[in-house]
Amino acid sequence: MKLLALSGSLRAASINSAFCRAAARLAPASMPVTVFAGLGKIPLFNPDLEAAPPAAVRDFRAAVSAADALLIASPEYAHGISGVMKNALDWLVSFEGTVNKPIALVNTSPRAHHAYESLREVLQTMSTRIVVEASPSIALLGVCVTEEAILGSVEVSRAITQMLAALAVHLASEEAAGPSFPLN
Amino acid sequence: MKLLALSGSLRAASINSAFCRAAARLAPASMPVTVFAGLGKIPLFNPDLEAAPPAAVRDFRAAVSAADALLIASPEYAHGISGVMKNALDWLVSFEGTVNKPIALVNTSPRAHHAYESLREVLQTMSTRIVVEASPSIALLGVCVTEEAILGSVEVSRAITQMLAALAVHLASEEAAGPSFPLN
Repeated sequence: MKLLALSGSLRAASINSAFCRAAARLAPASMPVTVFAGLGKIPLFNPDLEAAPPAAVRDFRAAVSAADALLIASPEYAHGISGVMKNALDWLVSFEGTVNKPIALVNTSPRAHHAYESLREVLQTMSTRIVVEASPSIALLGVCVTEEAILGSVEVSRAITQMLAALAVHLASEEAAGPSFPLN
Repeated sequence: MKLLALSGSLRAASINSAFCRAAARLAPASMPVTVFAGLGKIPLFNPDLEAAPPAAVRDFRAAVSAADALLIASPEYAHGISGVMKNALDWLVSFEGTVNKPIALVNTSPRAHHAYESLREVLQTMSTRIVVEASPSIALLGVCVTEEAILGSVEVSRAITQMLAALAVHLASEEAAGPSFPLN
């Protein structure tokens, strides 16, 4: 089982990026987490390029395809999804590798809810499957604004470990159940 | 009075871009509409670059500052604002030239409402002022998918002319009332 983590912020000191890196360090060997580093290189979505997408988009789609699930942590900008995250998702809307992809959608700023709810609506419309038990609110604002602070917090580290464990259980149960739609 | 029109799609045959160009051709000489052509050149938003933004962002901000109002028409992608439009707006969030900017927000696909409502929420959070009487739904899907078809439709042309007239009345009444906050 392999996870791909996406942070919706390009800020070097982004809390959501720190969260993704911390999750990668806390992940068990049986379910490694790779933080996708190329979201800032993806060009602005242009439907005219869908048939022959730019290299950065092909790389992104390949990484999504190769992952068993996505871990998404994204900031709220002006009560909306960050343009960086929405732009990346726009390139996945008509990409078949997105269909049925399990998603752990974490809200690192529980005081904000607009972007999180919009993301949920968008991801459901894209036919991904948000894994509810692996999509907690984990409040980081305040002290846990760096990767080291997150790893140093017993409470936050435990919340991340529990989220990853819940996702692992979900993915294992899916695998045991077989494909979720007829393949013939 | 000068308007700046923004389309949220980069597709060459975009209905929203056709709408913006048609509005520019229908605008009276007293209120010219310029369609901003550079939305696709704006880099992905990075808060670390806010202090010294890239040239494409400076051009965009200057065009917004120079306009008396914005005309926004944007598609809905997967029940959300297009990443192209949200990314452009993200660069305006902490730009003082955005504050109190009057906005005509037109929904060209009335069957869709998620992106339109999200845009309204975002623009209000950014302290712009959506001019309700100049923010109609104008259904284009079907026959009016090109600039010529829009201009050829008596009904749609009239709706655009009425929208521009309502905006002109609003801007004139604002000008007569003077600045909306103390300048001293």
